[in-house]
Amino acid sequence: MQGQMMNQPLIVSSLIEHAERFHGDTEIVSRTVEGLSADNGDAINNGVHRYTYADAHQRSKQLANALQTLGIQIGDRVGTLAWNGYRHFELYYAISGIGAITHTVNPRLFPEQIAWIVNDAEDQILFFDLTFAPLIEAVAAQCPSVKHWVAMTDREHMPELNVPNLLCYEDLLVAESNDFAWPQLDENSACALCYTSGTTGNPKGVMYSHRSTLLHAFSSAMPDSMNLSGSDAVLPVVPMFHVNAWGIPYAAPMVGAKLVFPGAGMDGASLCELFENEGVTFTAGVPTVWLGVLQHLQSTGTKLSTVKRMIVGGAACPPALMQSFKNEYSIKLQHAWGMTELSPLGAVNTLKQRHLTLSDADRFALETKQGRPPFGIDLKIVDGDGNELPRDGQAAGDLLVRGHWVVNQYFGKDDSPLENGWFPTGDVANLDQDGFMQITDRSKDVIKSGGEWISSIELENIAMGHPAVAEAAVIGVKHPKWDERPLIAVVKKADQEVTREDILAQYPGKVAKFCIPDDVVFVDEIPHTATGKVSKLLLREQLSAYSWPTDL
Amino acid sequence: MQGQMMNQPLIVSSLIEHAERFHGDTEIVSRTVEGLSADNGDAINNGVHRYTYADAHQRSKQLANALQTLGIQIGDRVGTLAWNGYRHFELYYAISGIGAITHTVNPRLFPEQIAWIVNDAEDQILFFDLTFAPLIEAVAAQCPSVKHWVAMTDREHMPELNVPNLLCYEDLLVAESNDFAWPQLDENSACALCYTSGTTGNPKGVMYSHRSTLLHAFSSAMPDSMNLSGSDAVLPVVPMFHVNAWGIPYAAPMVGAKLVFPGAGMDGASLCELFENEGVTFTAGVPTVWLGVLQHLQSTGTKLSTVKRMIVGGAACPPALMQSFKNEYSIKLQHAWGMTELSPLGAVNTLKQRHLTLSDADRFALETKQGRPPFGIDLKIVDGDGNELPRDGQAAGDLLVRGHWVVNQYFGKDDSPLENGWFPTGDVANLDQDGFMQITDRSKDVIKSGGEWISSIELENIAMGHPAVAEAAVIGVKHPKWDERPLIAVVKKADQEVTREDILAQYPGKVAKFCIPDDVVFVDEIPHTATGKVSKLLLREQLSAYSWPTDL
Repeated sequence: MQGQMMNQPLIVSSLIEHAERFHGDTEIVSRTVEGLSADNGDAINNGVHRYTYADAHQRSKQLANALQTLGIQIGDRVGTLAWNGYRHFELYYAISGIGAITHTVNPRLFPEQIAWIVNDAEDQILFFDLTFAPLIEAVAAQCPSVKHWVAMTDREHMPELNVPNLLCYEDLLVAESNDFAWPQLDENSACALCYTSGTTGNPKGVMYSHRSTLLHAFSSAMPDSMNLSGSDAVLPVVPMFHVNAWGIPYAAPMVGAKLVFPGAGMDGASLCELFENEGVTFTAGVPTVWLGVLQHLQSTGTKLSTVKRMIVGGAACPPALMQSFKNEYSIKLQHAWGMTELSPLGAVNTLKQRHLTLSDADRFALETKQGRPPFGIDLKIVDGDGNELPRDGQAAGDLLVRGHWVVNQYFGKDDSPLENGWFPTGDVANLDQDGFMQITDRSKDVIKSGGEWISSIELENIAMGHPAVAEAAVIGVKHPKWDERPLIAVVKKADQEVTREDILAQYPGKVAKFCIPDDVVFVDEIPHTATGKVSKLLLREQLSAYSWPTDL
Repeated sequence: MQGQMMNQPLIVSSLIEHAERFHGDTEIVSRTVEGLSADNGDAINNGVHRYTYADAHQRSKQLANALQTLGIQIGDRVGTLAWNGYRHFELYYAISGIGAITHTVNPRLFPEQIAWIVNDAEDQILFFDLTFAPLIEAVAAQCPSVKHWVAMTDREHMPELNVPNLLCYEDLLVAESNDFAWPQLDENSACALCYTSGTTGNPKGVMYSHRSTLLHAFSSAMPDSMNLSGSDAVLPVVPMFHVNAWGIPYAAPMVGAKLVFPGAGMDGASLCELFENEGVTFTAGVPTVWLGVLQHLQSTGTKLSTVKRMIVGGAACPPALMQSFKNEYSIKLQHAWGMTELSPLGAVNTLKQRHLTLSDADRFALETKQGRPPFGIDLKIVDGDGNELPRDGQAAGDLLVRGHWVVNQYFGKDDSPLENGWFPTGDVANLDQDGFMQITDRSKDVIKSGGEWISSIELENIAMGHPAVAEAAVIGVKHPKWDERPLIAVVKKADQEVTREDILAQYPGKVAKFCIPDDVVFVDEIPHTATGKVSKLLLREQLSAYSWPTDL
């Protein structure tokens, strides 16, 4: 027997329609790319653009007409190379709304990688922010599927570019009416495409559906996830080209939160200015961003008066960073964990009622874990033979995940990435009895020493607890006796001194003796991937000439 | 092109599975029916039963096996006549989990109505709390479809009943294993059935689907709805036989909130005891319940130390009640609005960022409205010709609704209740530019005076603002000159005095002169429906002998 309730599809366009109807006056504020250029600093209200959800919806409908005029059909891929801003937001809704697929490309990749991804996706149009005009000139000739290149600006700011079929975003809109009825698409049809930035092999595309995107939006706005409401002002620092800014451009209109887009200004000073000017209450980004914000606050002696919560994800957050924000600024830096393959939300660190009476130390130990999964995501850890391991907070194994917004198949691939219906994350983790998950390593970064597994992340966090350490990363280096032993690379803070012995003195009593790194190397910089994660691959190359001291 | 994400059905059993896996130790606490009987007060820990989500899931699986042993098939209806308690909770999950339909019957209806509903639904089994044993004896012979009557108790407490095929709940469970794999049902299949308590005509059944129930659970837990999280302890006073306790038995396991079930103890003293003993943070019920709680607190001079929020719905809440809780007890009494046909959530009153700077008076005026719809629900108001009226907070019209958890068709009926795809609520309301909806009347209760519409609810709230008034209700009474004029019926508080003139003196300056009631009648009691709403139908009958004073 069927239920007898209205059955509407869960589709992206319904989010912006709801936002116009019930949050029409709520603002979307964007730092613009044009405004940041030297000669136009004052032209657009000091580089800040301001409008409402109603405006955004009307312009999205104009853009939808423009896309159809340019020949875009259901299922076509349309690429973007852009910062977080209002035009990028309009593209999210217009492209997905007509049944095409919003393909966000990461502009931090090398030009050859970008061309490879655009070709793999067969993008029909590519929209780009002015910042990336040189990149477009470099790749245009290698992207035969792209019929139009659209500069996301107005006629006044159009660049001189040696690119065929160059169009102006605002010209496209002006030519169109805002009379457009969003089609009632199949909710399982594709709405967006994002490639993983795999450190080995070619990137792989994850094809999100309207349904998975909407269910993810519900989940991410929940009180124990991002806790988003109509009384929030939300600034996603995490880029819209990086797993859809963790879904915030969908979740914010769902709840009617004010949206604040930072454009290209992701340094501490620029962010703090926007936080204060726009009354931002919630923000989300990777650890290096919050490190920049902390350094700005400390060096200027300023505070943030409205920010209450920051979600940190994309990489393990050094506990010392969480403590500084909590103790010095009363801001809750909250761990979350996700992957491109998970839309991205897999877990958020939010305490349960039973945890509210824990001692500060016990509570903090819990808060440094990656968190627990929301409804809709299931996690388990398994040994090498696929047997589920106990949830005791100790046993570590390969982390597997399944759920409503987890990848089933990579775009254009025939073979399934799943193991018995579960997606293998490539992380090694433990789970405790309350469902809190703690990643101890990437499978490929685990250091195998004398038959034992050593977690590099724990060792890195201990080093970063030293006040003179700006960043630290551990790799396994071949060792004649133990197979591998941990070596720690350390970046000192500017104007601070710290010795090899100071670093190694941090470990006794905190980890088992066999886990303590054997040596320390001081480096000027630790290499990062395009998405801001430490690149162990590049670090291993950088330190390939290293050999253990003869006295070890 | 299809998305390439895992596609799992949104089904009820996945809620309790998630709760066991990630909130297995979180408690479900129930005041029992057996414990309240005089001779067993101490038998079951002073009448309180206590277990966990893990226990509830294991017992639900035993019950699922028992239902199949009794011959229940996919699509069969299984009835319940029960208070809010752990066995009722297990029935929700076991019945819906195997693909049958949980039909909650309201025990406050008259026996003939109950028999009519059980027959209309063709319930195969009926589960009942001991309280309702006399009712079962009265109706059993009239319910030929029911093959088994199951008393929700253990062998020790089994009643002597003249009912065929009487079974004992705990005996059923003991006989079964907890080895059961929930079927992956079609998410659009039916999971639950609830009849409206229409004041005219026969009740009509609303058949919820798994999908509509899960989407409603997501929505109801959101920060701007009930704001439910793993750090909450939730006590639904609203009965599980009344629109599924507003969905709380689904939303709480979704987020891992502790659940506290009050059983039959819905008086102020019993509720306050549970609130304090169990650390309840959130609760939900109709205005008369909160009136009882307030009177208990005031008469005992006690406070509530953990309750932060109370949702009030089911009927318009007197503003004076909201103010008392806010000013005297620092508890936010939050308006919500719903209907059986809406699963039930249609709107919740949660302020937006722009409202946080309003004056206390302006903010309070906003807070007395029914609220704004969450994503998933769309509202509009129309005039008599179906034309949409402006959202200016002034124009009032028939309120229409549509969305993911709105009825499409009544159970067993062929004709559609919809008007051009929208469900007509039978309420008259206005909408303001922020989407806040305010019900001004039921369509049939509007008083038509000299061509103008007069809202009875506003007039009632003004009367209830008088400190000596316990309850007030306005009806339209035929008038020789004006067609109808408002008459107000008033129940005085115990030991308090108030005159006709005192009441009428409340109105000038607050409403237009033509809206002021023409007369006051003092009554001992105002009649209510089975779900606690004022029954204007019965009140009109009660006052049918009334005639206007000759000097009017």
